[in-house]
Amino acid sequence: MKKSINIGLIGCGVVGTGVANNLLNIESAERNLPCEIKLKKIADLYPFKERPYKIPVDLFTTNADELLDDPEIDIIVELIGGCGFALKVIKDALMRKKSVVTANKALLAEYGQHLAALAKQNEVDLYYEAAVCGGIPIIKSVREGLTCDAIENFRGIVNGTCNYILTRMGKDGMAFDDAVKAAQQNGYAEADPTFDLMGKDSLHKLVLLIANCFGQWIKPEEIYTEGIIGLDQTDIRCAEELGYSIKLLAWARAKDNKLECMVAPTLINKSSMLSGVCDAYNAVEINGFPIGRTLYYGEGAGMNATSSAVTADIIDIARNIYSGSVGRLPVFALKKEEYQLVPAPEMEMRYYLRWKTDDRPGVIAALSKELTEREIGISSVILHEFAKAQPYSIVTFMTRETTEARMKEAIASLNKLDCIQSKTVMLRVESGF
Amino acid sequence: MKKSINIGLIGCGVVGTGVANNLLNIESAERNLPCEIKLKKIADLYPFKERPYKIPVDLFTTNADELLDDPEIDIIVELIGGCGFALKVIKDALMRKKSVVTANKALLAEYGQHLAALAKQNEVDLYYEAAVCGGIPIIKSVREGLTCDAIENFRGIVNGTCNYILTRMGKDGMAFDDAVKAAQQNGYAEADPTFDLMGKDSLHKLVLLIANCFGQWIKPEEIYTEGIIGLDQTDIRCAEELGYSIKLLAWARAKDNKLECMVAPTLINKSSMLSGVCDAYNAVEINGFPIGRTLYYGEGAGMNATSSAVTADIIDIARNIYSGSVGRLPVFALKKEEYQLVPAPEMEMRYYLRWKTDDRPGVIAALSKELTEREIGISSVILHEFAKAQPYSIVTFMTRETTEARMKEAIASLNKLDCIQSKTVMLRVESGF
Repeated sequence: MKKSINIGLIGCGVVGTGVANNLLNIESAERNLPCEIKLKKIADLYPFKERPYKIPVDLFTTNADELLDDPEIDIIVELIGGCGFALKVIKDALMRKKSVVTANKALLAEYGQHLAALAKQNEVDLYYEAAVCGGIPIIKSVREGLTCDAIENFRGIVNGTCNYILTRMGKDGMAFDDAVKAAQQNGYAEADPTFDLMGKDSLHKLVLLIANCFGQWIKPEEIYTEGIIGLDQTDIRCAEELGYSIKLLAWARAKDNKLECMVAPTLINKSSMLSGVCDAYNAVEINGFPIGRTLYYGEGAGMNATSSAVTADIIDIARNIYSGSVGRLPVFALKKEEYQLVPAPEMEMRYYLRWKTDDRPGVIAALSKELTEREIGISSVILHEFAKAQPYSIVTFMTRETTEARMKEAIASLNKLDCIQSKTVMLRVESGF
Repeated sequence: MKKSINIGLIGCGVVGTGVANNLLNIESAERNLPCEIKLKKIADLYPFKERPYKIPVDLFTTNADELLDDPEIDIIVELIGGCGFALKVIKDALMRKKSVVTANKALLAEYGQHLAALAKQNEVDLYYEAAVCGGIPIIKSVREGLTCDAIENFRGIVNGTCNYILTRMGKDGMAFDDAVKAAQQNGYAEADPTFDLMGKDSLHKLVLLIANCFGQWIKPEEIYTEGIIGLDQTDIRCAEELGYSIKLLAWARAKDNKLECMVAPTLINKSSMLSGVCDAYNAVEINGFPIGRTLYYGEGAGMNATSSAVTADIIDIARNIYSGSVGRLPVFALKKEEYQLVPAPEMEMRYYLRWKTDDRPGVIAALSKELTEREIGISSVILHEFAKAQPYSIVTFMTRETTEARMKEAIASLNKLDCIQSKTVMLRVESGF
């Protein structure tokens, strides 16, 4: 049995610095660990950069190969990010029979299946708790806690940047652009937040959650993804009035060997726990049998929460190495099933529709006729009364369940009506979870 | 390496039947398990009893020793309940080097420390996920997911019966007695629900959470415990008006080597995720560093959720046996610290006070004088105006933080005032979490 497990950290940016600080301060005895966990070396291009925690300079090298070549290093922690050098580092580490911990969701969403096979082949562990929802132990909960369950569906608020922006729009009445600025000023959004706002980050996490919950790898480009760019304050208010919040949801559901999944801003009923998830927090709700409904909530990003998850993975693998049980868990998925991906146009959902219309007789009749003709049921209509005639009215409809294809067809016709002053705003409404 | 892990189930009541059904239907290959998990024998006094799932009669014996004596059985699942025969069964199993899975919170709260030592001594596992919050993987999350964190505090809604009753009182305006009846009719409360209503069940779970979060064993009788018996609908309404829900909370917090903990009905601000935990659901919120705030939510009881947790434990131990890593985790606590338990009178909290008073001048002055004299700050006062004089008024105060001792002293004086028509109702208000 090894008495000391040696860690090599590659990439010492914000999260890396947090991890290094955690590892330098772990008291193995106090934590009831059977062995010492030692940060042996850090590879980073900028050893002398100012960091939020003080890390001894003699731990640093600028050459990652020094760590990969070191036979004494048991676990490589990859915190470089991106799919270039990071991929090479992880592959090299696995092939040299070193276990790997990473927080790299983009890389895993693309190459996870391949890397899992490589880890298995080399009989080492590949852990990635921090890749989905920062500090929340969601991968552990699914992979080890829900092992007895058939998961029916899940839906997650998995991007803190978007959730912070939507919260500011909802609670403080900010316009989208102002909320983005507020997110940047408070450190919740990058200088260029496009990737988050387009839903791409949520998409990567969705791919990893699907792989774990349903045992299936879906290519990111196969999943319909809609971000929150340009979301209108009017719709936040109208949703609120209907008893809903708008959240950027990443969700999937399986039924009869068919799998539906999507990333899109979605109306969530205020009675739902997910609706209460505000600011930069993340949460994932999972429904399965026999466990029923469960939800996991916490900080989805940032140095602290993310470094907590990375370090917990390191401790987990250290226990495996110490007890001789590396590879005791499959890297992804506990279940093996073959699901057929349902194309977005065939999915059935409820919809929220909103228009700026003329304030004159016949508008509601014209709007509802387009839906009725396509057998789309309407579950609510709101048009507020004003004392005097206005230059325009705001009209919202909520529909019953219908297919995305039928809805889009209806919208094409609705947009041609001469009573509307702006194109139809369409958002999806949670149903069937 | 063992190719098949054999399970002996002792106690086949509601949860036991669920577990048996799960085990009989597990497809090892489909679940990516490395080995077969086989339910070899069930010991129960009533083999022919009608059960919600059909279990083959030839699996049954009425003699538990048959399972304990069987060298082929690797894991004993104890679902008898109580602290008598169940304790004997667990001890016998551990001493015969069989790992044990149990959902028995009462037994673990009393004998957990002793049994953990016995498991360690015999180099076997003792798992008990189902003992706290049914299906929620809360023990796994704390014991394996938050290993890097210093937990500062936690607070949980850990009894589904009480939460169901409080939800009916809050959402449906039911009186306490009617809500208890509704809970019984819907299968959420026992015929004699006293144990749950007095907070004893929550207390047992609190002891186990403290053992895991803070590495310290507190005797149940040392913890101040207040249930929800006789809670008045008036207070549910007054709390609602103040922006709070009343929940039966089990909480603990550590600071400077001092540990505070309690079970008591508590006002939770509606902006908190915990406030949205309704019906028979459970949730635990944990705050720590570096992870920040996390929350775990799900069904806290019932055949399905509980059997999910028991079965996940069985699978976990089976993986340990298969990979030769039994004992890879300590049974409780990852942290070893010595905390000093703070007696309830010394704890600082905020308080909600409510009276039925005369409707005449001087009442507010008299009430507030008693608090001011003891330097207890008042943060809000509500006395509603009526058009005409009434036979009584309802007055609520919310205080700033003060010690329980000082509060109780103030209440003794308040209860002597001749302007009040009923004794002071005092409830605790969340603060400092």
